[in-house]
Amino acid sequence: MKILLVYAHPEPRSLNGALRDVAVQELKAQGHEVQVSDLYADGWKSQVDRADFPTLGQDERLVPAAASKKAFEAGTLTEDVRAEIKKLLWADALILQFPMWWFTMPAILKGWVDRVFAYGFAYGVGEHSDRRWGDRYGEGKLAGRRAMLVVTAGGWEEHYADRGINGPIDDLLFPINHGILYYPGYDVLPPFVAYRVDRFDESGFEPVAERLRERMRTLFTAQPIPYRQQNAGDYLIPSMHLRPELGDPTATGFAIHLNDEASANEQ
Amino acid sequence: MKILLVYAHPEPRSLNGALRDVAVQELKAQGHEVQVSDLYADGWKSQVDRADFPTLGQDERLVPAAASKKAFEAGTLTEDVRAEIKKLLWADALILQFPMWWFTMPAILKGWVDRVFAYGFAYGVGEHSDRRWGDRYGEGKLAGRRAMLVVTAGGWEEHYADRGINGPIDDLLFPINHGILYYPGYDVLPPFVAYRVDRFDESGFEPVAERLRERMRTLFTAQPIPYRQQNAGDYLIPSMHLRPELGDPTATGFAIHLNDEASANEQ
Repeated sequence: MKILLVYAHPEPRSLNGALRDVAVQELKAQGHEVQVSDLYADGWKSQVDRADFPTLGQDERLVPAAASKKAFEAGTLTEDVRAEIKKLLWADALILQFPMWWFTMPAILKGWVDRVFAYGFAYGVGEHSDRRWGDRYGEGKLAGRRAMLVVTAGGWEEHYADRGINGPIDDLLFPINHGILYYPGYDVLPPFVAYRVDRFDESGFEPVAERLRERMRTLFTAQPIPYRQQNAGDYLIPSMHLRPELGDPTATGFAIHLNDEASANEQ
Repeated sequence: MKILLVYAHPEPRSLNGALRDVAVQELKAQGHEVQVSDLYADGWKSQVDRADFPTLGQDERLVPAAASKKAFEAGTLTEDVRAEIKKLLWADALILQFPMWWFTMPAILKGWVDRVFAYGFAYGVGEHSDRRWGDRYGEGKLAGRRAMLVVTAGGWEEHYADRGINGPIDDLLFPINHGILYYPGYDVLPPFVAYRVDRFDESGFEPVAERLRERMRTLFTAQPIPYRQQNAGDYLIPSMHLRPELGDPTATGFAIHLNDEASANEQ
């Protein structure tokens, strides 16, 4: 199979760099093909701006979504963005690897999402009717492929627990897993997270590396997070509220968007 | 009072640009002083990299947190970052204004956070003991000041409701409100959010502008989100789990970190 690993750490001689090498090596050992987009090494441009839309008139107002739609349709997105889209369409699986900074991805990786996830490619796809609200959340141009986060965090694992002060790790990553990856269609695997990485030494590395290797070995067999598909009947259209009879009625937050029944049946 | 508005939209002639002007005008009409950091206009550098740490040796490994700590202590952070820190220490209130892209802030604003929120300034502050876990979550160098998000979103408000498919807006913004703003000490106000902004026309603008003016008039009187302080007794140390007797035991997600009793008493 084919895997694209998008890597966002400024220092190759970092734990992130070492884990990336571990992941790539294990994937290749399994017979897979791997491409790496190393955003810092490639000098990736982080911010969406006028330079992204060369055909936009000098005095024309920049409306990012409209400009993105027009450029995607006309094939006039910039070379760097088109290259990433090509890689995404090549890959059976996408891995985003990054250090968690301020509870989400570094700016350079957010800029990769902002620029590469074009209108007509990752959003604004499909028809709207009384039975569908476009192709998103489980459908879309990237449906049938897998995605997974590989994250390092400076804090203690306990602080990211269900009752930990930072908030549960799965909820902190929901805007990425559900909002960025599931949205254009990916089946999203549970994230790989390494905690307290500022205190790592040689003896701490190998168990984490082995845990990552195992996740690479099961990349195409592990169960995805059972997010509910938008157009499969669980949501009312056009309000897109979860049907009142579904989900724990006392639950708050993101948890109701998981189909617990599906996951219980699988276990 | 003094207000810093950090603004992150690439097009001055946008709804965001118009709302920024409305906010600034209303704040000045109330007799406040306002500074605006217009990240696109200022050519803000988005990504954390070696150039942020000019004293780092050429062959030295870049460990972002360690480099940030050293540079903050020695006063060798870059000029642009030092200018922003100065503004933050000047301001009684901070407003972050941005279009929501992929359920969070644009890359350029994330880069402002990643670079300006230095170690020793916004994190890594205070002592650790059996009664404190540093000065964070309600304490820290920015305690006693207020912060607020002003956000525009392309989607429907219903889709961001408690049972809406995107997830509840307050949960989507929790990593920012709690993780970025409350963390270094800010009292965080409920966000201002304008929805379906791609469909705005002249007649739609004025009601939204008036809603924003009202929020600017109450910037220093509105009740902050009642997040629980880390070191005030609600959390066990060092696990930082919410004490078992606190919070709705059936609640999931971020909601347990709100002191509902405090907010009920205030109403």
